[in-house]
Amino acid sequence: MNSLRQFTRHKALQSLAVTPSQGFHTIRLWHRHFSSTPAVASRLAGLDPSKLTVTKTSTPKELTPAKDLVFGKTFTDHMLAIEWSASNGWDAPRIVPYQNLSLDPSACVFHYAFECFEGMKAYKDSNGQIRLFRPDKNMERLNKSSSRIALPTVDGEALTQLVGELVKLDSRFIPSARGYSLYLRPTMIGTQSTLGVGPPGSALLFVIASPVGPYYPTGFKAISLEATDYAVRAWPGGVGDKKLGANYAPCIVPQLSAASRGFQQNLWLFGEEEYVTEVGTMNLFIALKNKETGQKELVTAPLDGTILEGVTRDSVLGLARERLAPNGWTVSERKIRMSEVAEAADEGRLIEVFGSGTAAIVSPVRSISYKGKMVDCGLKEDEEAGEIASQMKNWIEGIQYGDEDHKWSYVL
Amino acid sequence: MNSLRQFTRHKALQSLAVTPSQGFHTIRLWHRHFSSTPAVASRLAGLDPSKLTVTKTSTPKELTPAKDLVFGKTFTDHMLAIEWSASNGWDAPRIVPYQNLSLDPSACVFHYAFECFEGMKAYKDSNGQIRLFRPDKNMERLNKSSSRIALPTVDGEALTQLVGELVKLDSRFIPSARGYSLYLRPTMIGTQSTLGVGPPGSALLFVIASPVGPYYPTGFKAISLEATDYAVRAWPGGVGDKKLGANYAPCIVPQLSAASRGFQQNLWLFGEEEYVTEVGTMNLFIALKNKETGQKELVTAPLDGTILEGVTRDSVLGLARERLAPNGWTVSERKIRMSEVAEAADEGRLIEVFGSGTAAIVSPVRSISYKGKMVDCGLKEDEEAGEIASQMKNWIEGIQYGDEDHKWSYVL
Repeated sequence: MNSLRQFTRHKALQSLAVTPSQGFHTIRLWHRHFSSTPAVASRLAGLDPSKLTVTKTSTPKELTPAKDLVFGKTFTDHMLAIEWSASNGWDAPRIVPYQNLSLDPSACVFHYAFECFEGMKAYKDSNGQIRLFRPDKNMERLNKSSSRIALPTVDGEALTQLVGELVKLDSRFIPSARGYSLYLRPTMIGTQSTLGVGPPGSALLFVIASPVGPYYPTGFKAISLEATDYAVRAWPGGVGDKKLGANYAPCIVPQLSAASRGFQQNLWLFGEEEYVTEVGTMNLFIALKNKETGQKELVTAPLDGTILEGVTRDSVLGLARERLAPNGWTVSERKIRMSEVAEAADEGRLIEVFGSGTAAIVSPVRSISYKGKMVDCGLKEDEEAGEIASQMKNWIEGIQYGDEDHKWSYVL
Repeated sequence: MNSLRQFTRHKALQSLAVTPSQGFHTIRLWHRHFSSTPAVASRLAGLDPSKLTVTKTSTPKELTPAKDLVFGKTFTDHMLAIEWSASNGWDAPRIVPYQNLSLDPSACVFHYAFECFEGMKAYKDSNGQIRLFRPDKNMERLNKSSSRIALPTVDGEALTQLVGELVKLDSRFIPSARGYSLYLRPTMIGTQSTLGVGPPGSALLFVIASPVGPYYPTGFKAISLEATDYAVRAWPGGVGDKKLGANYAPCIVPQLSAASRGFQQNLWLFGEEEYVTEVGTMNLFIALKNKETGQKELVTAPLDGTILEGVTRDSVLGLARERLAPNGWTVSERKIRMSEVAEAADEGRLIEVFGSGTAAIVSPVRSISYKGKMVDCGLKEDEEAGEIASQMKNWIEGIQYGDEDHKWSYVL
């Protein structure tokens, strides 16, 4: 407990527990931002992994039995925490015992949603090595998210290295069995204590880690979706392509509403054209045959600013172009109307539909409720996943766990 | 300090500092929501002001000199805090010394923006009585906001009563001079410790209070706006009409961008039609003469789901209908294109433009930068406010400070 107290005294009081009198004056902040030319920015401290300090817990946790793991409920012994201020840039990174954050009730994260995050995983391969999957993509997206809400950006390679230190320190929490991993949650929050609406003068970047089991412990289980046309997740010119907290809370009620009618997720349609966009918190893929030519096509919505730039989405697209296209598949990032999906289903041309995301990799879809009808997504009654979804899961998991030597796998 | 420790031990540990193991299982939460019929809900505890406990600070703050007050920077001695859980409903309300919140880093407020707030003020009238302004409107909106993001609702009258207790306890912080007030910030956050995306199983409602000076200490100062057409604040089917944290962080970068070109605020346009919606964090009013009839019209955007339901907006509309309409004004809630505003300016028919909000009451606009041209909003060179804006400020302030006996003023 000594280390915890130490952290609280020496560091948390500096910024995790900013008191109003320590905050920045709004005017000064604006001034900072207006003068934040590259020359000024370069004088601020960047993220420096060589300055990492590690305070180990004196009360290590008992491991939760692998079978009892629930996504995002139990956490490892430690967390990574790095403070930032507009005047000094990034402070020295610290690995400290997992602990509560202490924040002034006026901290801007509580009022104006200055918060963004990433979701990534660490995997233990058959040699006991620990691997990340495409961490560069997460870092790139974190910076896109943070800069969109006036939070600082970070050197992605430096942060990946620091995340690696946390993962190695807490590696005993990663179950070795296939399908298990350590879910990592880099999170950046604005910590400045003021109710004035402006760019945060201080921020905290923290990374917590939660051991997780396979999304489908007993094999795929296809889900049913309800197409949502009364609520809209994202809009052109909005922030739906960023991983901001702001994009999540508003989605819960429509999801609960779909769930109350027996659907596992809702499918977000957009506009009068009812374009298919995302499913719950996943990207969506649709495999269908062309009406005229019969050619097989794998479709997902294009990155037009309303679609989250999923790392799994990008991986599915990459693998499809490499491994499906030679077998006669067209791989398309294009807008697709829900009516086109329904028509393909009616005409027996809908091959399969699946969501993609870090949690499940792929999530096969059995049916979509649309305008009072059920659109059958092509699975046989005794089938829980289509061929493409199954292949993608195997391919991606093979890379994640190091069975296949691939540039996307990053050995710590 | 004893009271602070007590709070920390007995209460904050229950929910302000929820540990992962104390959280609710996601499945159970969903179950709760599906079964949350009125019959079930009624078994949960409602907000009960009679259960209020007050723990006074042992270290009262020194008052900040009135002239040094900055909006939302200094806070009073105490705060109101009420915890909620899906299993028990609202806990007993507590007034405690102003203090940091202690939250698990996986608390859903940090990741998914489960947060909403209100802005309201307490005023000291010439008899030393303390008054709120239309608190019922704030409570109504708080419930609209919270329920939209799966946070609990609250008995508005009960919360107003409790806010009143906090204000009375800290009344020494309210300067008596005209234009000064105590800004009140009721805030609700989701506190559940889990990374699973679902309805929060626990929440905290807190109210903090910040003494504030007049928005225009030396009289009105008209602002210049930049019309923003590349970013979108809100959209149909979205949540732009709710006072969610999610609506604020994404607005900062466009505001900074406008500010970098010398504009105090940005004006949010919507759609191909470039409808005028809001200015920064205020509603917008436009006074112009009809092209054909010459009749004077006061226009503001209608509540179509993209416009914040401002209490000041509603008050301006109400007073305009009561006091301007008899003098030949038409009062309209209608969509108005930026091009219509520009045309009226070109033709000398634009009378005045002003923003409305709790902070400034009204904020006169001198000009709007639109498509590379400056739209002159009708003020003379030596004028900082138009007649309607000035009248509205006087009328509303008169009610707020009790000069005029009016049902909108709520004496504590």
